[in-house]
Amino acid sequence: MKDAKREGESATELPGQVDASLYFIGRIRTPWRERADCPRQGDPVNGPECRIEIDPRWRDALLGIEKHQQLQILYWMDRSRRDLVRQIGRGRSEPSGTFALRSPARPNPIASTIVALIGVADLTLVVKGLDCLDETPLLDIKPNYAI
Amino acid sequence: MKDAKREGESATELPGQVDASLYFIGRIRTPWRERADCPRQGDPVNGPECRIEIDPRWRDALLGIEKHQQLQILYWMDRSRRDLVRQIGRGRSEPSGTFALRSPARPNPIASTIVALIGVADLTLVVKGLDCLDETPLLDIKPNYAI
Repeated sequence: MKDAKREGESATELPGQVDASLYFIGRIRTPWRERADCPRQGDPVNGPECRIEIDPRWRDALLGIEKHQQLQILYWMDRSRRDLVRQIGRGRSEPSGTFALRSPARPNPIASTIVALIGVADLTLVVKGLDCLDETPLLDIKPNYAI
Repeated sequence: MKDAKREGESATELPGQVDASLYFIGRIRTPWRERADCPRQGDPVNGPECRIEIDPRWRDALLGIEKHQQLQILYWMDRSRRDLVRQIGRGRSEPSGTFALRSPARPNPIASTIVALIGVADLTLVVKGLDCLDETPLLDIKPNYAI
């Protein structure tokens, strides 16, 4: 999906081939249906409870997850264009390089967020701290050990 | 690449199709040539200086990167098996679910590390805090705002 470029933004030609492939391992369920509704940053304390629904194939990979208070969630921002190299960040007027921003538009649109784990019920994790669209594809869950 | 399973470890059948694709955007250069040599965790203060070499295609995406002291680096652990759901973590005796561990063996072997940015020279970033093999494929660079 290509959003229009804005003044000062620039794109590169994407490589003609890909180098590796991803499996979606579940879906993230949030209250937000449009990008404009998403909070700028998730709030693991006061944010709404969201659900992470894991595909049954990965059931056994959840063993022991409930021991962790904080998780790192990786997800795929599947609506982002991948060829922007300079872009205007939110709330900015001058372009920055893509790698100097956390914008969703990047060569590999993988987002990383730290969430608080509220509860686990079968294949569903209830968490706080997400900021993404409803139905966002899930890539990974890792324990977060940083304080 | 499939390492043998150990007692107590189990695997699932991987999906018959993939859902998304990745571009490698550069390579990470470290002193470590074998997995056994890699530190368990990178050290952004006392670790050795390592280099991140960006593909020329993404040159413009580095604009402004030097303003950031800490970066989040995502890379692809291309030697890991992807089908393990229960595994014995390093230094443990009982199996845990893959999502309760930060093991490289996971459905989408994306690693996330916070590094200190020491310097930038053209397409090369000099950083401290990496823990991966030499020649590891790079997926993303983001500023890290967490303290």
